Amino acid sequence: MTESTQTAVVGVTGYAGAELARLLLRHPRLGGKPPVFVARGEGRELSNGGIPLIEVHPQLADNNGAGNLRMEAFSWELLAERGVEVLFLATPHEQSREWAPIALNRGLRVIDLSGAWRLHQPSNRAVYAFPDEGSEQARATQAQAVYGMPELHRGRIAGARLVANPGCFSTSVILALKPLTAAALLDLNHGIVADSKSGVSGAGRAPTPRTHFMYAADNLSAYGVFSHRHTGELLEQIGVGAGEIVFTPHLLPIPRGILSTIYVRFKQAQTRDALAQVYRNFYASCPMVRFHEKSLPQIQHVLHTNYADIGFELDAGGERAVIVSCLDNLLKGAAGQAVQNLNVVLGWPEAEGLT
Amino acid sequence: MTESTQTAVVGVTGYAGAELARLLLRHPRLGGKPPVFVARGEGRELSNGGIPLIEVHPQLADNNGAGNLRMEAFSWELLAERGVEVLFLATPHEQSREWAPIALNRGLRVIDLSGAWRLHQPSNRAVYAFPDEGSEQARATQAQAVYGMPELHRGRIAGARLVANPGCFSTSVILALKPLTAAALLDLNHGIVADSKSGVSGAGRAPTPRTHFMYAADNLSAYGVFSHRHTGELLEQIGVGAGEIVFTPHLLPIPRGILSTIYVRFKQAQTRDALAQVYRNFYASCPMVRFHEKSLPQIQHVLHTNYADIGFELDAGGERAVIVSCLDNLLKGAAGQAVQNLNVVLGWPEAEGLT
Amino acid sequence: MTESTQTAVVGVTGYAGAELARLLLRHPRLGGKPPVFVARGEGRELSNGGIPLIEVHPQLADNNGAGNLRMEAFSWELLAERGVEVLFLATPHEQSREWAPIALNRGLRVIDLSGAWRLHQPSNRAVYAFPDEGSEQARATQAQAVYGMPELHRGRIAGARLVANPGCFSTSVILALKPLTAAALLDLNHGIVADSKSGVSGAGRAPTPRTHFMYAADNLSAYGVFSHRHTGELLEQIGVGAGEIVFTPHLLPIPRGILSTIYVRFKQAQTRDALAQVYRNFYASCPMVRFHEKSLPQIQHVLHTNYADIGFELDAGGERAVIVSCLDNLLKGAAGQAVQNLNVVLGWPEAEGLT
Amino acid sequence: MTESTQTAVVGVTGYAGAELARLLLRHPRLGGKPPVFVARGEGRELSNGGIPLIEVHPQLADNNGAGNLRMEAFSWELLAERGVEVLFLATPHEQSREWAPIALNRGLRVIDLSGAWRLHQPSNRAVYAFPDEGSEQARATQAQAVYGMPELHRGRIAGARLVANPGCFSTSVILALKPLTAAALLDLNHGIVADSKSGVSGAGRAPTPRTHFMYAADNLSAYGVFSHRHTGELLEQIGVGAGEIVFTPHLLPIPRGILSTIYVRFKQAQTRDALAQVYRNFYASCPMVRFHEKSLPQIQHVLHTNYADIGFELDAGGERAVIVSCLDNLLKGAAGQAVQNLNVVLGWPEAEGLT
Repeated sequence: MTESTQTAVVGVTGYAGAELARLLLRHPRLGGKPPVFVARGEGRELSNGGIPLIEVHPQLADNNGAGNLRMEAFSWELLAERGVEVLFLATPHEQSREWAPIALNRGLRVIDLSGAWRLHQPSNRAVYAFPDEGSEQARATQAQAVYGMPELHRGRIAGARLVANPGCFSTSVILALKPLTAAALLDLNHGIVADSKSGVSGAGRAPTPRTHFMYAADNLSAYGVFSHRHTGELLEQIGVGAGEIVFTPHLLPIPRGILSTIYVRFKQAQTRDALAQVYRNFYASCPMVRFHEKSLPQIQHVLHTNYADIGFELDAGGERAVIVSCLDNLLKGAAGQAVQNLNVVLGWPEAEGLT
Repeated sequence: MTESTQTAVVGVTGYAGAELARLLLRHPRLGGKPPVFVARGEGRELSNGGIPLIEVHPQLADNNGAGNLRMEAFSWELLAERGVEVLFLATPHEQSREWAPIALNRGLRVIDLSGAWRLHQPSNRAVYAFPDEGSEQARATQAQAVYGMPELHRGRIAGARLVANPGCFSTSVILALKPLTAAALLDLNHGIVADSKSGVSGAGRAPTPRTHFMYAADNLSAYGVFSHRHTGELLEQIGVGAGEIVFTPHLLPIPRGILSTIYVRFKQAQTRDALAQVYRNFYASCPMVRFHEKSLPQIQHVLHTNYADIGFELDAGGERAVIVSCLDNLLKGAAGQAVQNLNVVLGWPEAEGLT
Repeated sequence: MTESTQTAVVGVTGYAGAELARLLLRHPRLGGKPPVFVARGEGRELSNGGIPLIEVHPQLADNNGAGNLRMEAFSWELLAERGVEVLFLATPHEQSREWAPIALNRGLRVIDLSGAWRLHQPSNRAVYAFPDEGSEQARATQAQAVYGMPELHRGRIAGARLVANPGCFSTSVILALKPLTAAALLDLNHGIVADSKSGVSGAGRAPTPRTHFMYAADNLSAYGVFSHRHTGELLEQIGVGAGEIVFTPHLLPIPRGILSTIYVRFKQAQTRDALAQVYRNFYASCPMVRFHEKSLPQIQHVLHTNYADIGFELDAGGERAVIVSCLDNLLKGAAGQAVQNLNVVLGWPEAEGLT
Repeated sequence: MTESTQTAVVGVTGYAGAELARLLLRHPRLGGKPPVFVARGEGRELSNGGIPLIEVHPQLADNNGAGNLRMEAFSWELLAERGVEVLFLATPHEQSREWAPIALNRGLRVIDLSGAWRLHQPSNRAVYAFPDEGSEQARATQAQAVYGMPELHRGRIAGARLVANPGCFSTSVILALKPLTAAALLDLNHGIVADSKSGVSGAGRAPTPRTHFMYAADNLSAYGVFSHRHTGELLEQIGVGAGEIVFTPHLLPIPRGILSTIYVRFKQAQTRDALAQVYRNFYASCPMVRFHEKSLPQIQHVLHTNYADIGFELDAGGERAVIVSCLDNLLKGAAGQAVQNLNVVLGWPEAEGLT
């Protein structure tokens, strides 16, 4: 059992990065070892010893001195000097694609929050148009990557060198459906519908017309219909064909949180009890999934937590169900799951630092 | 052609009632004839000549004198005295069930905004458990009722004595689907999914735990799964069986607006152009439906208007479509459609007072 | 009395521009003469006959053909060709500073929504750092400019060539205070405090870190303390010295609306009735100001209207009052007041097209 | 030094109660001793062994068993049986007024979150109209009560039997002003203005017209002008006369958070550095107050924390300042400060369990 480890985070300026910093700073096993926060590039601001972390994220401040941490200019040498063992990449997928192989070569473990290494089928990766697609290095790196959803792949994540942290929408939909496909209950001829709604933090920190308050507030809009990048994760992890699921994301007028409403048909009529038992069994040893016996989950109950909440309603005939799945897109959908993966990789209790 | 008419509104205190008051007060054909606003009951407040309308709805005030209107105590005699010809019932369905027959007997036309008279199949009405179900009077009244969606029933609404104004969710889903079922394009074996999201005004003005700001804000929740009262309207108006559509409403953290995301499969592969032509043709003479050729509608663009906006995306194979339909639940979903029905009933231009 | 007029709008792409377009398109006197919408620059998009207005503002669409209007490339020749008589500038102040003199020379009337021509004292203008400050042309143009608040300057606005439409915050504060300073009731030694709160549309359409949904939502922040550009308008129009008023704007997590809470002391103790009479008298012939006798105004009641609502509370001794003033920053705070000015300039009823 | 203690909470169903439960459940010194949660009354639900806490507050659930806690029917015997030493009253002030003396008599320490025991001057208490005003018991109880703001009264809170936890608005305004009045810097002749804005949780959990989403959303309103109950706390704690401060609360369209904008004049011109030093010194040993050197605080940065953030701007002449003070009304404004008081009462580190 590892006692502690030295971590580093690239990309701390984004929303998921801020949550990752918060979680790592208060993680009980990392108490004496605050993460190294690094920023790509060599801007004048960084060259002068770095930018105080609390200038970027004032909410991380306290007046006890934790505010002394700085975001430094990235270099592989810096990481080596500081003895970094685990590197979190909260970076655009293009950068993760480039840096993960280098980090692995230098002996670092990598937990990558981007979409760079999540997909194993080339056809599913096509939507990313990776420039190194087909290269030997990309192939070898992908071969080491484990899809970082502990509820599905705990055994392979333990000790992994490269963890591909899942997409936020994907996590919400996969956790709702996997128990049913694993038990071969679904009539896939009828097709699954996953109607997902996400808060605005999912759209990133860059100011754009879509993230403008005036666009997002008092509004709801669908986007990426039949084309969203998370679809490939659904296919690979749930184990369904491209024609067997339709996934539609929507932009909610709230800062954070995802709710997915998922419509399925069963091969054979189900009872409420039997179906509940399927979920209970599947998640029996999963501390971060809460199955709701009596009511449907809602976004408020998962905000600022790493839980995924799941509930369902069955129709009168037991042939169709509506499953509702909620999580905080910055936690179970990003930074929280990344820390959960850290715990599993290093053999620590899975929920440590997360409850 | 009727030049004008004397209207009355029962139930002006609710959100739909307020919009109805606003629309009628500025309707060009009703200029000289402000509606009679009446409240059920005989409270002390009402007995003293009524309550100023602007105490109930300050936003209706201006300083030119229109603020002199009062909400008076209801009596059939009052309506007769004032020469009321058209009675709007913005009342709970129990009350509409009781009053509509009386009003018809007294020679009034009725435009009812509740669910009292929308459903023609007894099985679909079961969810309301009307106490007079099966009575001769109820049967006779229902027989006169026309479902008040001018885009579908314009001819029968013209001159109607009793118009059953549609539900807000129903309007949004029916307008999106009717062109497709009318053209027999859908493969109903696969089932339709209608995932609808509504602002909080749809939950009514009564303060309840669900309408508390703390419940609704920064949240999203599904409700009424497999059991919402609007389902019967979908079955009757779209023309599908109970097993062929699943409808799930959600409560959005915004004051008003509905967006429905609807998932369908086609019997035969469609092209984008062919499908667009179906919508264009169906709504060619419908001034209050806007078909979006290039983009999906969103809630912001219909707020404070009586438009229903519809758009769709087709999958690569042309076999599945996601249709998005938006409207303002208080206007096209309630008061606006009621005024549209008034126009059609009396032979006035359908969009008069609504654009 | 002018029957109609040909208007043009530069800067229709912003939030105030959209409201201006909406108001002008439905103005009863402009029915046959839709405004000419022009955009600075000669982008490829514009060169091809212009951009459909409804691509920029989908909410302006209907399906009756008004959607055929286009935003065209600006040229003085175009304006001349179309017979434009009144030019609305919904442009940055730098551009208004440059174009207003040209427009005046070409015989156009100008209603400028920017801060370019609002301030008569050079010291108050310093905050804008106009590059042409002190030039003869600027001096001559400023001399023609009338501060476009009809409640204060109706007589001088009538027939004016150049109307400087007031700032949104300024309108809210000036309308609350002017009746009191005009009656010399205030003890200015004690200083006035104007604490104003505005929705996000006041920050403009450009996506910036401050207009990002994640910044504005679930938040409140003060800004421009002791330095906001609207302060000069307060000094000149209310008639107080720089040391006699403090004005602090805040960014509210709502799309639109301004509420100002204003704290004053009186030279002599006042009664509620006497003070109410002061407001009633001052605004007796002002159709767009609503004085609240019994309650304090709130933002909801003015949204989507051109009204400014004013109310107050007096302390037990009658020596101090808190005045609350509300308006819609895009209407009475911008486009609505601009149309009100158009009406006054041309001798039309002041509230025409605004109620 | 006490190692641990047995606590109980009455009134856990409210918003502050929920936060209190959350903080106590994760407090490092209370690990083995979860609080006893009790509800007034003897409803049928309670009689059957109590209501699961997570039915009342689903967000407190995890799937590790902490969800086994129940809310039990209150009795003094129950508290005695469980060995309760510290009783938190998150109850209406009428109930705290009745129960605090009983609890003290039974040897319990009390931390009361209501307004029952905050005010020492009878004239300031008049607004509450306590029925036992003037009774010997009330006098004796009040004499034991310490105003629970550790930054001002740390020494007297240590070991106290009855702590009157401050009001949320009061905390925000007192912390901003006390350093200035303590240093006798303010010119009180000119009067202080405290313009405060609070999220909706401050209005309590009862569904009322004011807490309806439709009232609070997209709105801002002032209330309690010249009459809010927290005013007395300002007078007593800041040390100013009734005529020397005006306090106006507003209802913000956000769930939680308070921002107060406070306007002061100085006896003598100040420099930014000197004033900053006053704040730094005053809060040098206060772990829960963060003084902002360079920027103004905003609500987002204190949400879900127990910090009070304070910053200011000085005018050019150094004679006037605008001070901005932010906190989370449910934490530093209620439950967090209550736990801070628990820590101080028992001699534990002041910020334990709060960062």
